[in-house]
Amino acid sequence: MKFSDLINQLSPQAHSLTSHPEINPELDNIMPIDEAHPNSLSYIEGDRFAKMVDITTASALILPLDSSLQDLAIKRKIAWLSSPSPRLAFAQVLNLFYQPYQPSPQIHSTAVIADDVKLGKKVAIAANVVIESGVTIGDDVCIYPNVVVYPHVTIGDRTLLHSNCTIEERTHIGADCVIHSGAVIGGEGFGFVPISEGWYKMPQSGYVILEDGVEVGCNSTIDRPAVGTTKIGKNTKLDNLVHVGHNCQLGENSALAAQVGLAGGVKVGNRVILAGQVGVANQAQIGDGAIASAQTGIHSDVKAGETVSGSPAVNNKLYLKVSAIYKKLPEIYKTVRQLGKSL
Amino acid sequence: MKFSDLINQLSPQAHSLTSHPEINPELDNIMPIDEAHPNSLSYIEGDRFAKMVDITTASALILPLDSSLQDLAIKRKIAWLSSPSPRLAFAQVLNLFYQPYQPSPQIHSTAVIADDVKLGKKVAIAANVVIESGVTIGDDVCIYPNVVVYPHVTIGDRTLLHSNCTIEERTHIGADCVIHSGAVIGGEGFGFVPISEGWYKMPQSGYVILEDGVEVGCNSTIDRPAVGTTKIGKNTKLDNLVHVGHNCQLGENSALAAQVGLAGGVKVGNRVILAGQVGVANQAQIGDGAIASAQTGIHSDVKAGETVSGSPAVNNKLYLKVSAIYKKLPEIYKTVRQLGKSL
Amino acid sequence: MKFSDLINQLSPQAHSLTSHPEINPELDNIMPIDEAHPNSLSYIEGDRFAKMVDITTASALILPLDSSLQDLAIKRKIAWLSSPSPRLAFAQVLNLFYQPYQPSPQIHSTAVIADDVKLGKKVAIAANVVIESGVTIGDDVCIYPNVVVYPHVTIGDRTLLHSNCTIEERTHIGADCVIHSGAVIGGEGFGFVPISEGWYKMPQSGYVILEDGVEVGCNSTIDRPAVGTTKIGKNTKLDNLVHVGHNCQLGENSALAAQVGLAGGVKVGNRVILAGQVGVANQAQIGDGAIASAQTGIHSDVKAGETVSGSPAVNNKLYLKVSAIYKKLPEIYKTVRQLGKSL
Repeated sequence: MKFSDLINQLSPQAHSLTSHPEINPELDNIMPIDEAHPNSLSYIEGDRFAKMVDITTASALILPLDSSLQDLAIKRKIAWLSSPSPRLAFAQVLNLFYQPYQPSPQIHSTAVIADDVKLGKKVAIAANVVIESGVTIGDDVCIYPNVVVYPHVTIGDRTLLHSNCTIEERTHIGADCVIHSGAVIGGEGFGFVPISEGWYKMPQSGYVILEDGVEVGCNSTIDRPAVGTTKIGKNTKLDNLVHVGHNCQLGENSALAAQVGLAGGVKVGNRVILAGQVGVANQAQIGDGAIASAQTGIHSDVKAGETVSGSPAVNNKLYLKVSAIYKKLPEIYKTVRQLGKSL
Repeated sequence: MKFSDLINQLSPQAHSLTSHPEINPELDNIMPIDEAHPNSLSYIEGDRFAKMVDITTASALILPLDSSLQDLAIKRKIAWLSSPSPRLAFAQVLNLFYQPYQPSPQIHSTAVIADDVKLGKKVAIAANVVIESGVTIGDDVCIYPNVVVYPHVTIGDRTLLHSNCTIEERTHIGADCVIHSGAVIGGEGFGFVPISEGWYKMPQSGYVILEDGVEVGCNSTIDRPAVGTTKIGKNTKLDNLVHVGHNCQLGENSALAAQVGLAGGVKVGNRVILAGQVGVANQAQIGDGAIASAQTGIHSDVKAGETVSGSPAVNNKLYLKVSAIYKKLPEIYKTVRQLGKSL
Repeated sequence: MKFSDLINQLSPQAHSLTSHPEINPELDNIMPIDEAHPNSLSYIEGDRFAKMVDITTASALILPLDSSLQDLAIKRKIAWLSSPSPRLAFAQVLNLFYQPYQPSPQIHSTAVIADDVKLGKKVAIAANVVIESGVTIGDDVCIYPNVVVYPHVTIGDRTLLHSNCTIEERTHIGADCVIHSGAVIGGEGFGFVPISEGWYKMPQSGYVILEDGVEVGCNSTIDRPAVGTTKIGKNTKLDNLVHVGHNCQLGENSALAAQVGLAGGVKVGNRVILAGQVGVANQAQIGDGAIASAQTGIHSDVKAGETVSGSPAVNNKLYLKVSAIYKKLPEIYKTVRQLGKSL
């Protein structure tokens, strides 16, 4: 693709794009900056830019709105496009070059589909998929090999279910969702009542709702509750190996990084970010726009907009102070002992 | 179901149940208190009760043994039943209204079952299940779609294996166990001996034993050892994404919450509770009735009955004190510096 | 097998082996020391040896180079072999007695294999395996039941793919690798650009490379990146439920224990050891031979050869000091308050 064609295709969606028209290389791939070669388009984030523009052999670059970098690129005869959001422009460019694999829209002969399953238009159901009774599947849904769907599940339009994932009974999955390989949606919540002989199992009669645009990472698990629902709001994204317990209610546009665990009944607001390995205790409530850094242990409510860190979680500013002093504990202890003696 | 019928069905198992006979609504579902409507039975835990009894539109409630709540319910014409263990009564009521999905007791034509597999009575083997040579399966076992069972596994009566789980070679699973979707039981323990060229793989010739009534959560993994066994005792329950390393020995009636990880050779007693994301180091021993709160890092033995917290784990009482003071480290440090100068 | 035969078979690979020739029992199994019986060979590690040599009923023992233990064994008529690396000798002995289950080298009739897949010699493809278009599979590869391989994957000679694992598009797996059950290799990296309406999905056009001899534990996940590669170096071993984010670059002969999580773009050197539940933040670099103890939270670079602990990670020696003092915080706080008053 000519660089000029790329700009033409990109412009309608990225309206504040600027670019240099005179250098117009042929582009045939997109590469990380340190693997780029002639005919590559490339992009890097942050301060390492300047140095790399000087040495890369890429033919085109996505730059921030920085005229000195643009000038440098021109001097080196590298085509460039600039955007107030270079990362977004990069994603949009990638979409012009690459589409992930999808099975073709047909029903494979080895799929086992109950008689009463309702299938939308142009549905792809790959080899060895099993779909139980009472399931409803929307248009353009794509189900990869070896997926299992339990009874009375509904799956919205254009949703993808990757291989070896399991969607348990009565789960509602909205439109434009992606369930990655090995994820389990709607498994039984972990509920056991202690009795003298051990445990009495709490039946899990509720169900899971994923609203439109939800993404669930590989081997993540979202449990259904005893009664009511476990809900993930619109466009919320979960990374790999995340656990969402029964009755959790997550808002919209939030993001949970890998290995995050939410116990039962946790409430998460909109645009919340939980970094890797964060744990949240039963019933804790996390307000809109809150952020928790990696490995944070949240035991009580977090206010909207707050950033928390540490286990147990405290405000991030306090955490940074405390962490810095933490390393000085031997010194503090020594002084305190000396002072204590003089007391 | 009439409320009076529910009480009749429930009474034999919940002998200390009390209820109000005069209000006798028709019940057709069980709902969380904030979603209940007429003809719902509902239940909530803890102090939020009083307020909700005042406003719910549920037709019946499970209450603790509290005469003022009972009187309030009568005043509002809500049927009630009271139990010294309302949560247990709730579970028992749910069992009257709800049964989870189970495949019917037949062998699906697409299942691949070795010739010498021994099958009990009324076994359900769903689509695309693969069962290798030398496996023995008890009565009323139910195997959901796409499960794989390696050679020489034994599975006890009434055990359920949910979809996409893998039971590796020579695993013994007892009666009345539930293996949730995607779990892997009996995979090779993580054993590599460092040698000059890298690693020499330790063969894993042992096997996993799950005693009766064990439950293993979605995508959890239990490894087999080099020699001997990895054992989970009777009625012990594991939540999702739990890792149990080779040669671990778990007692009876314990519960491990989501994302707990046990390294190799860990010993866990009876009625132990490990909360979410707890990690336990190689060979550590945890006594009967011990409790570890979420994200605890256990590096050495924990006494029977002790509650531990923190990483590295300390007694929970000490932890609570230390955590409270932890936040005051900036203040402490400031004071110590001032005092140090005056020294 | 006679003990003398075992020694004969073992000697070529374990050249510094010493043994006692006169006691020559028949051996029929290898057992943990506390389950050993006559005709068992056994082995234990560490200081518990002496006591066990005194009481075991095993017929043969693997001992360290310790003449007093050897003498004790002879006195008790127990055959022994000694090695400077008893653990390695144990692994080598186990290999003489035990081979894990492998499907036989044939293509099962229920496997669904695209027409253009290139298959090496003596490949085993078990029941219900699905292999998409453009895949290349080397000699002696063994694919267990219900595995799914997406298009354009390459798999090297002698590699094993255990049940229910998923290898996503364009992944390169080297020779002599083991992918354990339920693992997902090459799933989409977690990349979303925040926009006013929520998130814009970053396409993940890169791919995963596993070099020769890599092992990936059950239900672990290794993500592919937006551009470029995620790479695991030769002979590096990953335990269960490990997460490796997009663009991570791992060196050779490293080991990651269960539930370790690496965020995006992490660099890990050669012979690095990360213990259980360690988390590593975006772009952090860990030098050759570094070690992180369990639950460590690594937010910045770790030098070659350094041992780190704690969250946030500090040098292990400092960590041990700080952890010891940490428990004394109540006492420190009390003293500081007293001193503060006297200020």
